[in-house]
Amino acid sequence: MNEIKIFCPATIANLNCGFDVMGLCLEGIGDEMIIRKVAEKGIRITKITGADLPLETEKNVAGVAALAICKDAINRVAMEHGFEIEIHKKIKAGSGIGSSSASAAGAVFGINELLGKPYTKHELVDFAMKGEALASGCEHADNVAPCVLGGFTLVRGYNPLDVIKIKSPTDLYAVVLHPHIEVKTSDARAVLKPTIPLKDAITQCGNLGGLIAGLYTNDYELIGRSLQDVIIEPMRKQLIPNFDAVKNSALANGALGAGISGAGPSIFALCKGQTIAEKVAISMSNSYQNTGIPFDMHISKVNDEGVKIL
Amino acid sequence: MNEIKIFCPATIANLNCGFDVMGLCLEGIGDEMIIRKVAEKGIRITKITGADLPLETEKNVAGVAALAICKDAINRVAMEHGFEIEIHKKIKAGSGIGSSSASAAGAVFGINELLGKPYTKHELVDFAMKGEALASGCEHADNVAPCVLGGFTLVRGYNPLDVIKIKSPTDLYAVVLHPHIEVKTSDARAVLKPTIPLKDAITQCGNLGGLIAGLYTNDYELIGRSLQDVIIEPMRKQLIPNFDAVKNSALANGALGAGISGAGPSIFALCKGQTIAEKVAISMSNSYQNTGIPFDMHISKVNDEGVKIL
Repeated sequence: MNEIKIFCPATIANLNCGFDVMGLCLEGIGDEMIIRKVAEKGIRITKITGADLPLETEKNVAGVAALAICKDAINRVAMEHGFEIEIHKKIKAGSGIGSSSASAAGAVFGINELLGKPYTKHELVDFAMKGEALASGCEHADNVAPCVLGGFTLVRGYNPLDVIKIKSPTDLYAVVLHPHIEVKTSDARAVLKPTIPLKDAITQCGNLGGLIAGLYTNDYELIGRSLQDVIIEPMRKQLIPNFDAVKNSALANGALGAGISGAGPSIFALCKGQTIAEKVAISMSNSYQNTGIPFDMHISKVNDEGVKIL
Repeated sequence: MNEIKIFCPATIANLNCGFDVMGLCLEGIGDEMIIRKVAEKGIRITKITGADLPLETEKNVAGVAALAICKDAINRVAMEHGFEIEIHKKIKAGSGIGSSSASAAGAVFGINELLGKPYTKHELVDFAMKGEALASGCEHADNVAPCVLGGFTLVRGYNPLDVIKIKSPTDLYAVVLHPHIEVKTSDARAVLKPTIPLKDAITQCGNLGGLIAGLYTNDYELIGRSLQDVIIEPMRKQLIPNFDAVKNSALANGALGAGISGAGPSIFALCKGQTIAEKVAISMSNSYQNTGIPFDMHISKVNDEGVKIL
């Protein structure tokens, strides 16, 4: 096997109560990548479609992630060859559903496959994080972890990286509304306060615990009660026009919960079952029409597999 | 059935990463109470042994909790009688292992039994919390919830009260060292800061998520990695002489984790299996000898049943 085509799914990080620690993987939207084993050593990005991204390996998140795994892999396998990478972006950059993470995860997953799988999926998260760091300025795993592992993931901690896949019910759907506006990462960070009230941290912890308990026990109502964010959403929602109206329409139409996907501007809702998800998508869409801002809608089952060979 | 004898277990609140939300129930130590149905209406505390506590119903946590359930119960059952309560304290007041919660939980549990169980255990937590409020000044459930429900519990939130019992492995033991010093609740609160760094809240959330995931999946190592407290312990440990030495001896001898029980001064360790728990107890005990402060040691399996009829 010298060439594989890969599906690199979009992801939703934070999930309201899990700021910087929780994420989930989507099925209905993702990039495609082709990874090719070639005689010439090193990593080359040979083609990018769907986005205006740098081809230089060191300036591309997929390239940096690929370099990270290859640098380590020489200790595990004979590597008398290099890799070419094609990236076909479907996830828009800056949408808040893990565009850069998909590229980073796809690169390391694909190279690992072509090397004969010397690494576990959990180990791949670490390499993908190196690529993600190029995009965000710091190593964080809340999108790459669900992209690589699938399903719901928890980043317990970083020293060393400790990522847990959380078992979840099979009938969960996510709805994503992506308004075509730019929320600069610097703005999304600037609105956050470096300190928070202790009582808010306790509320957030209670809800995160509830979310994880709800996922393990297939308790959809508990999942819904737990999908609250008293820390980040009140600050960041001002950056997203019509956020409250969209969220309220999702909840009024049966969503378990709704909030900001990642750092925004995408707004997500979690739903039990496809029928409710479709109803919620229509209501969110209707409530955004009058803003005059163009937007995309995605409906997706939670993807338990993660990045995969097509 | 007009009289029952009840075992009212001690509990450990907070468990490091779960400040104000997590708790667990102990088996080896608890109070005993006798609840008696009598012709005369109202609640009377007729006897207290083992502690110098008020007999006046309105000034006693068991009395206040009993009044709370009886006030509500007239809407559910015919109540042409009253109750007498005897309290035999084994859990020392101010030890940090849920002494007042045991009394409050015992009273509501016993009365519910004698009324023919009109309430679920989850409903009893709410009444017990009314009694607990007398002792601590505010209604909180992190000790009464595990005392009533047994095992590990999470208080997801308070509006309304939402308590989740968390499934846990069967071979978990707690070791408790109770130094005979008084840590005033006002002092334990005064050392806490009303605001905390956002990054510490994220670390704490990651660990709480890890603890709950570890409990559901019987992953003792994950439980151990998660039993960390970056928010409260650094502040409160200064109130407990020799805390670091005791904690380090527990960890060095195989404890999964160790920390402050409730608001202290008790120090707890969680261990996998009785053999390790006994070794850890000896090491903690040895490391406390040289303080000259008298102390008690308890070794207890986690009690999955909670308050019960003897």
